[in-house]
Amino acid sequence: MRSSTGVKTSTPLVVSKASELRQVVAAWRQQHLTVGLVPTMGALHAGHASLIRAAAAENDRTVVSIFVNPLQFGAGEDFESYPRPFEKDRQLARELGAAAIYAPSPGEMYRPGAATRVRVSGLSDVLEGVSRPGHFEGVATVVAKLFNASRPDRAYFGQKDAQQVAVVRRLASDLDTGIEIRVCPIVRDVDGLALSSRNAYLNTEEREAALALSRALRSANSAFLKGERDPGQLRRLLQDTLREEPRANVDYADVVDPVDFAGPGQLAVLAVRIGRTRLIDNHQLGEPFAAALSG
Amino acid sequence: MRSSTGVKTSTPLVVSKASELRQVVAAWRQQHLTVGLVPTMGALHAGHASLIRAAAAENDRTVVSIFVNPLQFGAGEDFESYPRPFEKDRQLARELGAAAIYAPSPGEMYRPGAATRVRVSGLSDVLEGVSRPGHFEGVATVVAKLFNASRPDRAYFGQKDAQQVAVVRRLASDLDTGIEIRVCPIVRDVDGLALSSRNAYLNTEEREAALALSRALRSANSAFLKGERDPGQLRRLLQDTLREEPRANVDYADVVDPVDFAGPGQLAVLAVRIGRTRLIDNHQLGEPFAAALSG
Repeated sequence: MRSSTGVKTSTPLVVSKASELRQVVAAWRQQHLTVGLVPTMGALHAGHASLIRAAAAENDRTVVSIFVNPLQFGAGEDFESYPRPFEKDRQLARELGAAAIYAPSPGEMYRPGAATRVRVSGLSDVLEGVSRPGHFEGVATVVAKLFNASRPDRAYFGQKDAQQVAVVRRLASDLDTGIEIRVCPIVRDVDGLALSSRNAYLNTEEREAALALSRALRSANSAFLKGERDPGQLRRLLQDTLREEPRANVDYADVVDPVDFAGPGQLAVLAVRIGRTRLIDNHQLGEPFAAALSG
Repeated sequence: MRSSTGVKTSTPLVVSKASELRQVVAAWRQQHLTVGLVPTMGALHAGHASLIRAAAAENDRTVVSIFVNPLQFGAGEDFESYPRPFEKDRQLARELGAAAIYAPSPGEMYRPGAATRVRVSGLSDVLEGVSRPGHFEGVATVVAKLFNASRPDRAYFGQKDAQQVAVVRRLASDLDTGIEIRVCPIVRDVDGLALSSRNAYLNTEEREAALALSRALRSANSAFLKGERDPGQLRRLLQDTLREEPRANVDYADVVDPVDFAGPGQLAVLAVRIGRTRLIDNHQLGEPFAAALSG
């Protein structure tokens, strides 16, 4: 059923148990339908929308999972305060063409006695992995579970979380999942800020200060396009640009290889605290900046 | 096609790549056939045969994997010398009704750069886990891969490796695989020795000495059936019986819970070195001893 705007408006199935989701997907499989999975923590923005649209375009059925995964948050991080606008998310996923929403409770996802963890070594131990110990083990474990519960042909991730993308690619290949990992470009606001559910934490001044991240990436990109290839120079450019913003507290700024996240490479990666909000951003040097959203 | 003895003799497909196996299984799925997986390290004996028979009886198609998994062997263990009679295994699996044999090379199973490990904490850190550090991480990782490559309805394991069974059950549930874990009883030789591919290492005197394991289990079982419930007493009975055999070098002998392998419980578990061969055995106290193979 399509509305007058051509958008699918049939209510997607909301399932809360892995066993239910498996049954739903098995029924699709029996009809020879292909399946795409978009794992999210909800608080959906235009970045997520691009993933869901891509999945809906490339697969017969799309599952959007919405789960704020406690395992990937460290002590003192924002697990409790992370936004959870479930009704709004559900409606958006529906409008974008999701056939099912998988929204388990934390107690359903991690049952009493659960003791299994998935870990990608090396990749999980640098940059984000140093700043957020245990984060990628939490990501890898929940992704392995989501893959098993939905058994998709393709799974969709945002380039915004570049190191997560590398971890998930490694896991999907290493564990013989047979799932194709599709990565969609970063979506930026008109002013250049990469979309993130955590942008909602920023007040007006912080939001202004947060532009330092994309400014730093653009500055390194300009230098790269003019021929600068020295990783030390490129790193310094990132750091110098960030240092001009007094509200920016740099966690890391580096230029690494996009597969193993060891240096040197051509992926510029940043993590910066603005007030109490930690933001990340990245850019493959030499590539044009993605078209920004229109205001 | 069935031979005059009623045994299937159609040649099973031998596949060496996970992607091939996935295609074979996907084709079966499209015909709505059910699939059983029997993971083995080859050197098949009557214990494995009981697993393959059970899988063939309960599923439309049975996959037998044959892979001596380097990840579950420690330094100084018998990875190199472990028997690999592939042609004999293939023929036996065929006779027992396997539709496909999955026999990847170590280089295919663990490709360069592979970095993902699956770990079941707690269970992996006691008894066998203490004697063989890293063993259960190797088991859990390869089992997760075999599950993904074959996506069976049911997977078959032998009770002989009781702690492995507990690890696999935990993993299958924790990672939302939806795979039913089926466990077949220990198969014993006429003299009581639990069948193991490693029994081939024993010389005549060692083979005789190895009977101390089942003797110890029977002795604890007799006491249990007469009302003995004190775990300390039962443990002592196991150890005293083993001590009577001068060739037996006890690694552990305990009475534990069969789910979490913490004590106390009613599962008697043993690991004993006889010469250079390490043997394990176990028995659920109160249960009758399984019927032995006829000579």
